Amino acid sequence: MFDPAPILSGNRRALARLLTRIENAAPEAQAALTALFPHTGRAHVVGVTGAPGTGKSSLVNELAKALRRAGRTVAVVAVDPSSPFTGGAILGDRIRMRDLAGDPGVFIRSMASRGSLGGLARATGDVVKALDAAGFETILIETVGAGQTEVEIARTAQTTVVVEAPGLGDDVQAIKAGLLEIADVFALNKSDQPGAENALRALRASLDLAQPASRRWMGEAALAHHSLPSGESSQDGAQGPREAAAWIPPIIQTVAIQGQGVAALVGAMDRHREYLRASGELGQRERERLAHELEMRLRDVLLNGLVARLGNGQIAEAVDKILAREIDPVSAARQLAEKAGGVIRP
Amino acid sequence: MFDPAPILSGNRRALARLLTRIENAAPEAQAALTALFPHTGRAHVVGVTGAPGTGKSSLVNELAKALRRAGRTVAVVAVDPSSPFTGGAILGDRIRMRDLAGDPGVFIRSMASRGSLGGLARATGDVVKALDAAGFETILIETVGAGQTEVEIARTAQTTVVVEAPGLGDDVQAIKAGLLEIADVFALNKSDQPGAENALRALRASLDLAQPASRRWMGEAALAHHSLPSGESSQDGAQGPREAAAWIPPIIQTVAIQGQGVAALVGAMDRHREYLRASGELGQRERERLAHELEMRLRDVLLNGLVARLGNGQIAEAVDKILAREIDPVSAARQLAEKAGGVIRP
Repeated sequence: MFDPAPILSGNRRALARLLTRIENAAPEAQAALTALFPHTGRAHVVGVTGAPGTGKSSLVNELAKALRRAGRTVAVVAVDPSSPFTGGAILGDRIRMRDLAGDPGVFIRSMASRGSLGGLARATGDVVKALDAAGFETILIETVGAGQTEVEIARTAQTTVVVEAPGLGDDVQAIKAGLLEIADVFALNKSDQPGAENALRALRASLDLAQPASRRWMGEAALAHHSLPSGESSQDGAQGPREAAAWIPPIIQTVAIQGQGVAALVGAMDRHREYLRASGELGQRERERLAHELEMRLRDVLLNGLVARLGNGQIAEAVDKILAREIDPVSAARQLAEKAGGVIRP
Repeated sequence: MFDPAPILSGNRRALARLLTRIENAAPEAQAALTALFPHTGRAHVVGVTGAPGTGKSSLVNELAKALRRAGRTVAVVAVDPSSPFTGGAILGDRIRMRDLAGDPGVFIRSMASRGSLGGLARATGDVVKALDAAGFETILIETVGAGQTEVEIARTAQTTVVVEAPGLGDDVQAIKAGLLEIADVFALNKSDQPGAENALRALRASLDLAQPASRRWMGEAALAHHSLPSGESSQDGAQGPREAAAWIPPIIQTVAIQGQGVAALVGAMDRHREYLRASGELGQRERERLAHELEMRLRDVLLNGLVARLGNGQIAEAVDKILAREIDPVSAARQLAEKAGGVIRP
């Protein structure tokens, strides 16, 4: 049996050991997460993402320092989906975190991907749960790069900060366009550099074009179609989230390496959380996030069950037939599910 | 019933219509893919990826032109995972493809993501199947950005070209490190620019450190653990793929906007395909790719079956309990699978 007490009482070594087990998908990790789950749901989870070259890492470090100065505990999870095979964290600038080392109110963890699409997002979600149960008040999830992994990881966060910077190239502009839609707060970093005024104008113009109502939770996951009345999680009981005043993502100008604008960014993050609470959107997002996680877990449980029931031989046979173009993958999947006597498409 | 004849005979309007249905996940698309599947497996599928700012798009355009000059038909699939919500393709430079417009031996398609992690990779795989059945000899899949989506899409390709360029920033270097491991061929683009010599040296040094044997197919997908004898797909029957001489990714220096080095790049792509054939790795990769696709399809079929059997009420109830922290998502998934009388973890 897993004893959650050391982690709940802030034992850092027990926490570090559990995070390693989660990353390695060790069997004991699941029992621990089951025991810790009742103690989750208290932290403010903030995703920080942006295109390469925007200075995200410096900004995350300054955010952590500012939160500590305000007496708040903080955990940083630096996720690097660009390194899918090595399993090694290649975020070069963790070293800049040295001024936070030795502070028991800070916990820093770098995570690299382990191969499967979705595996990283799942492990990140579990790491956040452990840090949440361990009592960290703010959890900053920093992601490098841009793409669907960021969107998936943004699902874990309550507040998403998108970092922009002036003077990046065309390809980077395209990435920024994709990130626009997941932002709750913008940080225009390097705002002392040439082109900052133009970048600010361009960002404001993009925001005017954006449709806030359709910004989030448009995933096509199957369970998402079974949506529930959205009003019931509204805390004041008076109005559903849709009727609350819409949140307009503020743009905070920062110069991370000089610490400028960082306090204002913390303020914007706090205001966003307050908005989520008051509007009922906090509960609604939480419900959608957990429904999504349930779906992912169901997919795993069902597939593992089918493999256990049918054995490798029948699956290898199906692959042979697909390879010989005797059957296509979807038809083969339906046949296997039927053979398993299990859950099949009606 | 879907009639595959128009697509097999090269009707472009029928093909375009099918690709739209695939992108929209329309129900008719699956019947079409089932009918077309026996006609797939002939094209050389080449993924072209790289960090922002490397000039991928220009290079893909030049590759398409060079292939056409050699009398070969070519399809270009430009995938943009950075735009998850809009569904609009934001690759600004498709306009540069104008000199290829009107040529019946070329087909160009831009794809944007539709929300779910994995959904884009699946749709891209199906689009490639349709283009393959339609008879295009080379299919170039261009991906923007870097991350797990690229790795997932690289699974669809037989040959992966990673585009590098001199003089990119630190963040971009980190992304490049992740892409190193999926490269079959490197294109060092913008090789007339300052720093090209240094970039070439750095790339060669990284290659010397890389372990080719462990480069690929280390996904943690469940079916991957049920691996099959790898020798049986070797075409010469004499030796298994592992014993063949290892492929060392060549570095081709290009200046895409001047067309320099593009013919050499086509040559390297062709040599890689020849290597895949001779070593038996072509069949091995194909088997692993199809096993992976079967797994994804099984996950969908099983989940849809469970939802149909249990109905929305029981799933909503489970989400309620998770939200109240009465049960964790993994335990809830196991309970639901058991209730469905279906396939459960033993």
